[in-house]
Amino acid sequence: MVDNHIYQGNELGIDPRRVVWRRCMDMNDRQLRFIVDGLGGKANGVPREDGFDITVASEVMAAFCLATDLKDLKERLSRIIVAYTYSGKPVTAGDLKAHGAMAALLKDALKPNLVQTLEGTPAFVHGGPFANIAHGCNSVLATKMAMKLADYVVTEAGFGADLGAEKFLDIKCRVAGIRPDAVVIVASIRALKHHGGVPKDRLGEENLEALKKGLPNLLKHVENITMKFGLPAVVAINRFPSDTEAELELVRTECEKLGVKAVISEVWAKGGEGGIELAKEVLRLIEEGKNNYKPLYPLDMGIAEKIEMIAKEIYGADGVDFTPAARKEIETIESLGFREVPVCMAKTQYSLSDNPALLGRPNGFRITVRNVKISAGAGFAVALTGEIMTMPGLPKRPAAENIDVDENGRISGLF
Amino acid sequence: MVDNHIYQGNELGIDPRRVVWRRCMDMNDRQLRFIVDGLGGKANGVPREDGFDITVASEVMAAFCLATDLKDLKERLSRIIVAYTYSGKPVTAGDLKAHGAMAALLKDALKPNLVQTLEGTPAFVHGGPFANIAHGCNSVLATKMAMKLADYVVTEAGFGADLGAEKFLDIKCRVAGIRPDAVVIVASIRALKHHGGVPKDRLGEENLEALKKGLPNLLKHVENITMKFGLPAVVAINRFPSDTEAELELVRTECEKLGVKAVISEVWAKGGEGGIELAKEVLRLIEEGKNNYKPLYPLDMGIAEKIEMIAKEIYGADGVDFTPAARKEIETIESLGFREVPVCMAKTQYSLSDNPALLGRPNGFRITVRNVKISAGAGFAVALTGEIMTMPGLPKRPAAENIDVDENGRISGLF
Amino acid sequence: MVDNHIYQGNELGIDPRRVVWRRCMDMNDRQLRFIVDGLGGKANGVPREDGFDITVASEVMAAFCLATDLKDLKERLSRIIVAYTYSGKPVTAGDLKAHGAMAALLKDALKPNLVQTLEGTPAFVHGGPFANIAHGCNSVLATKMAMKLADYVVTEAGFGADLGAEKFLDIKCRVAGIRPDAVVIVASIRALKHHGGVPKDRLGEENLEALKKGLPNLLKHVENITMKFGLPAVVAINRFPSDTEAELELVRTECEKLGVKAVISEVWAKGGEGGIELAKEVLRLIEEGKNNYKPLYPLDMGIAEKIEMIAKEIYGADGVDFTPAARKEIETIESLGFREVPVCMAKTQYSLSDNPALLGRPNGFRITVRNVKISAGAGFAVALTGEIMTMPGLPKRPAAENIDVDENGRISGLF
Amino acid sequence: MVDNHIYQGNELGIDPRRVVWRRCMDMNDRQLRFIVDGLGGKANGVPREDGFDITVASEVMAAFCLATDLKDLKERLSRIIVAYTYSGKPVTAGDLKAHGAMAALLKDALKPNLVQTLEGTPAFVHGGPFANIAHGCNSVLATKMAMKLADYVVTEAGFGADLGAEKFLDIKCRVAGIRPDAVVIVASIRALKHHGGVPKDRLGEENLEALKKGLPNLLKHVENITMKFGLPAVVAINRFPSDTEAELELVRTECEKLGVKAVISEVWAKGGEGGIELAKEVLRLIEEGKNNYKPLYPLDMGIAEKIEMIAKEIYGADGVDFTPAARKEIETIESLGFREVPVCMAKTQYSLSDNPALLGRPNGFRITVRNVKISAGAGFAVALTGEIMTMPGLPKRPAAENIDVDENGRISGLF
Repeated sequence: MVDNHIYQGNELGIDPRRVVWRRCMDMNDRQLRFIVDGLGGKANGVPREDGFDITVASEVMAAFCLATDLKDLKERLSRIIVAYTYSGKPVTAGDLKAHGAMAALLKDALKPNLVQTLEGTPAFVHGGPFANIAHGCNSVLATKMAMKLADYVVTEAGFGADLGAEKFLDIKCRVAGIRPDAVVIVASIRALKHHGGVPKDRLGEENLEALKKGLPNLLKHVENITMKFGLPAVVAINRFPSDTEAELELVRTECEKLGVKAVISEVWAKGGEGGIELAKEVLRLIEEGKNNYKPLYPLDMGIAEKIEMIAKEIYGADGVDFTPAARKEIETIESLGFREVPVCMAKTQYSLSDNPALLGRPNGFRITVRNVKISAGAGFAVALTGEIMTMPGLPKRPAAENIDVDENGRISGLF
Repeated sequence: MVDNHIYQGNELGIDPRRVVWRRCMDMNDRQLRFIVDGLGGKANGVPREDGFDITVASEVMAAFCLATDLKDLKERLSRIIVAYTYSGKPVTAGDLKAHGAMAALLKDALKPNLVQTLEGTPAFVHGGPFANIAHGCNSVLATKMAMKLADYVVTEAGFGADLGAEKFLDIKCRVAGIRPDAVVIVASIRALKHHGGVPKDRLGEENLEALKKGLPNLLKHVENITMKFGLPAVVAINRFPSDTEAELELVRTECEKLGVKAVISEVWAKGGEGGIELAKEVLRLIEEGKNNYKPLYPLDMGIAEKIEMIAKEIYGADGVDFTPAARKEIETIESLGFREVPVCMAKTQYSLSDNPALLGRPNGFRITVRNVKISAGAGFAVALTGEIMTMPGLPKRPAAENIDVDENGRISGLF
Repeated sequence: MVDNHIYQGNELGIDPRRVVWRRCMDMNDRQLRFIVDGLGGKANGVPREDGFDITVASEVMAAFCLATDLKDLKERLSRIIVAYTYSGKPVTAGDLKAHGAMAALLKDALKPNLVQTLEGTPAFVHGGPFANIAHGCNSVLATKMAMKLADYVVTEAGFGADLGAEKFLDIKCRVAGIRPDAVVIVASIRALKHHGGVPKDRLGEENLEALKKGLPNLLKHVENITMKFGLPAVVAINRFPSDTEAELELVRTECEKLGVKAVISEVWAKGGEGGIELAKEVLRLIEEGKNNYKPLYPLDMGIAEKIEMIAKEIYGADGVDFTPAARKEIETIESLGFREVPVCMAKTQYSLSDNPALLGRPNGFRITVRNVKISAGAGFAVALTGEIMTMPGLPKRPAAENIDVDENGRISGLF
Repeated sequence: MVDNHIYQGNELGIDPRRVVWRRCMDMNDRQLRFIVDGLGGKANGVPREDGFDITVASEVMAAFCLATDLKDLKERLSRIIVAYTYSGKPVTAGDLKAHGAMAALLKDALKPNLVQTLEGTPAFVHGGPFANIAHGCNSVLATKMAMKLADYVVTEAGFGADLGAEKFLDIKCRVAGIRPDAVVIVASIRALKHHGGVPKDRLGEENLEALKKGLPNLLKHVENITMKFGLPAVVAINRFPSDTEAELELVRTECEKLGVKAVISEVWAKGGEGGIELAKEVLRLIEEGKNNYKPLYPLDMGIAEKIEMIAKEIYGADGVDFTPAARKEIETIESLGFREVPVCMAKTQYSLSDNPALLGRPNGFRITVRNVKISAGAGFAVALTGEIMTMPGLPKRPAAENIDVDENGRISGLF
């Protein structure tokens, strides 16, 4: 509808170089990352630079996951900025009268999908906004519906507690008007040894030295949850067969010093049985009720200030460097009336910093914000650190090469 | 998978300028007709000219509709030519090991969709290959399944009897191993007056002169069915309120001279009731059994000869002019082993000729074949006359602008 | 300046898809024939389809060669149409205020270059408009200056007498206000045998049969000059060592029947000496003064009618088929006020028809005009038959590979 | 020749995505900065991303300016890397056999142009390599020829002494085997006040405070010349009418403290007369002969180390941050055998740092090297800090709009 509007006379004065809405397709199609379309002369569109994202990277997905009902979804869709005019004014999906049809298409998708685990526990799998350029958690509707239906609701906010948990607590909880009772921080001995400098092929060996070196990474996450967000927490150690008792003990002791228990989880191997100790500690924390949850930052700070606050408080950075492009974009965004939105950080999940090579609990570093974008439909500003890939490619041997179906319709090669 | 193959080292030596497989999406997206993709440097594909078609224009749709079972479908998919190498050899979906996954995706779609008419008559709506670059009729599987289940099966082969019926009788029947018992040729007084030169806004007025002038168009179609294909036929006049008795009588009389009855059909207004006379005549024809059906041309003629035969016998042309490109492509196709395939004509439906302005029953004209393409999966050669559009665009006011959904999920504006 | 105008706000409302002015560079650069430029985001232009021509194919060259003085050149440059607006109005170089600077750049180039032949005869080599999309002859200024300075002036109008001579007589002479006194039609026995069907590698053998078959091609050219344009003519046979006396005699006899002498020219081997007989015949024709020169068509005919007249009278065609695009363009051009311009035919030089394979003096053929373009600065309409290439490419082994310069600055490998 | 090689079969296996040679044209053509060429199907090249630079930004210009004779030029041209193969090997102009023809084209251009100043002093204007991506000074041949012909030779090395002088002393002098006798550092009171924080429209007012604040910028340049390069120096104050005596005195005093005289130059207003004092001081320095010139860094250091040395010693940075791309490229370049080349810094001329906003003599900053490129023909590695523009665009009102020529050939509007 954007391109058709331009083609059919461009009443709104959309600048074809400033269409910010990318087409979206649920395929791993590297070839479509950067394209020029509208070629072939006057009858076939208007030439411009364009590209495709995968579905999870579309702002529609983020808006969808934060919508509180169908009406709210339609309003969010209507606010999505798809382009800017020659004179710099934003053009929204609503300006193009696209939001009604978009909402109609999503009407049934908006109903949460009830599924069950292997043991029969009910679960919702509903919505999947990319954890880098979006907030990365389940839909608000599914979470709230679960809270109506069950005594206890567990939801995931992954991709590193500095990213996933921060966005969950600063964005989703705020939008949904919910507050968690307790937080489970998942860790593994292997990952901590990796943060302590052990190469991948030696992570199976006991190495208390390295574990000690890597542990501050976990402890920083624990501190963030308990001290910055004011929430009771437990560390769940995702146990691997190679973990030694001495290693487990070390993690327990160090967590204890922060007043937090570290318990072993073997859910992946034993199912619910393997999570009983963890569940008990979660219940204890909830009953204890020592909950002072509040989001990290108030919404009425400037966008740059919010980014700086996250960087300093959660990542442990000395400060933030904004490129001139980022500075200018923040100014534009704020002047368009989007100053009081939460900030969605797009950062590597491999480090507390924006440099994947800085392991453990780095300090003396600064975060570079390359650019900032407004997701007006989702309702947050995205701060981009580093390059973000929103359309994956296929590997050397695509899985499709192995997939087959026989004459009886039996499919093979899926796994 | 084509582009990924090139990107990942291009073992098969595919020439990026000779990828003939276009991406496909079920949207009216003019902007994607002609694109350059693979831009953005070494990590993001390989630059080449490309474009999107809508689903119905994909060779997958044609192969699907001609497949006799899942095994046959997989083989057809495997034969689809997606590109040529630097040295001019065809590269197929099978060469890329894509056919298994493609067939797996289509496995359930291959099962015909049983629906019903407003009066409860069972009907299959299954498959929709574009009637210009493909053969334009229902799936072989649906037709054959219907023949197992019902006493009488009616199927459509539209887009002009010179196109739709010819392809049905020369391509689909041959592939499916079926033979029709009788043919209904649908006509309207209005269309015949149009062929007699009456402008659109005066088609509602009685005009016997013009009707007389336009009738030879219908009579040519009748002759084609009865004399070229050897099938009993009836003309169904799709009655409009403005048709006068004198006009109807004229059509009846002229058809009679060819030994064919013209009966009035009012199905569009009265449902089954309005088609009783027509049904009776069809049954009479079937029972009479004067059926000498054979396809127009044998498969062992050359491609150019088949095209010429269709042009002369069915369209009434003096002959065919092949552009040098078409000549060369026929040579290539035949040298690749595709000489004995049926020919699928891509021609305007507005005239018996390839010039939409030649109305009635033109003569003294020649057909120009601009190019020829092989659809190896569908199993036919496509002869292109004129420009063929395989990706539509949106109108000035897209229907989506009127579509909406209210807070209760009620959709409006669809019609 | 066109693209900068669009980039800087596009006051004139130029449609980037309808810029008809191509960049120009004097290199054989195939890669630049079709490009998309203005990529790289908002700061780097406006994306559009574009391409480069070589210098001789630029309308500047044609306008330059037809200019009668600097003032006229500037006016012609000012009239060049470089684009159309969104509402379809032409935008000229003058509208962009580019004509002054263009004329300033060409100021010195406009002065004819005086050079000399190997024997010291003065000659002008000045301007070279492409003989397909332009009129293909020397500058008006050089020709007129020569006429002031010398007793006799010989000028070339090559690329087939049906193309070169027709354009010289219908376009250049009319613009310059000059009239030739006599015409030399150059022919070779080899070329005539080729027109009689002899393959290239057997042209050296005597073949009176084939020569007889090919001769009508020459005779048609002779008739065109003497009967259509009313000019006295002589045929100059460019003699090759393999030409036999019998062959030469046959040409002489056949020409004689049309009242035209055929004389042997050996200028290429013997210099001026080899042209004495030819020169004498030219002088005789001039002195005889049987000169009824008039252009083929009057300017006040429609463009399509002029094209038809050239096709029928000069090429011997039955008529002209215009594609719908050509028809539409003629209408546009005429509505813009360019009805009374001469027509510049873009046709193959290999045949009197537009099909290079039709040798000799073909008949029963029609000419297809694919498109028509207005060269408003040159002052003619170009009728395009077939594909015209305006940017050559390099061969497999570019000449540059052999060019070198030694440490003393001596260049080698140029020839 | 690069694209033709690929098109004609690509014997060398050039990866079209890794052609690093850009076309070059001496026009301000923004639209050509980023293009896709080779479009239009198989016969018209190979699609790839490309772009044009202006002549001064071409590596040919840099190689030309550093060449010591025609033979050396040809060798340099031959070494220019134009592309990389699919397997990552460099392809040079020599591999394409292009160097001979390139040298032949440049043969006459290589001879220095002798011109004269308004007062009749002989001067060479010869070669102009861009001062950002190249070394920015006159040709080696012109400088050496001048040294043969004159008693004293003055040459320019502009664009900031941290850039121009550093490159002159580390690159050109080293290549040419010459050593300067003395250095004139040009400064202006206005610029120094700007470095002291005064906005542009108030630079005309006396402001000793600001001048004091800005002076360290000049003093750093003086220290660089005298202490890092070991050369005698004089500061030439380019006097403006608004400079006050107190301001001039302050500059003189501060320079004196470093043992360097600051003298007033009024050459721009008074010609040679205005430079007598400056000339005398230069002669004095030369006669005094306190010259310990040596380049800043030895060639046998790694590329990254050289960059760090320049950044720390000349710019006063704390260190250098290399992006991962830059690190990788340095590795590639060194592995190709280009470790021992000088480094050509591409940095803003507005600051001693790589941030144009850091005025005066900044400290506590780091330089970011975004990428590194090898100019194998010029013989240096280019370190890129920030974005470098190598093709300018036209302004809103191009100068061409005012240029005109009248009927007598008189050109107007050039200035």
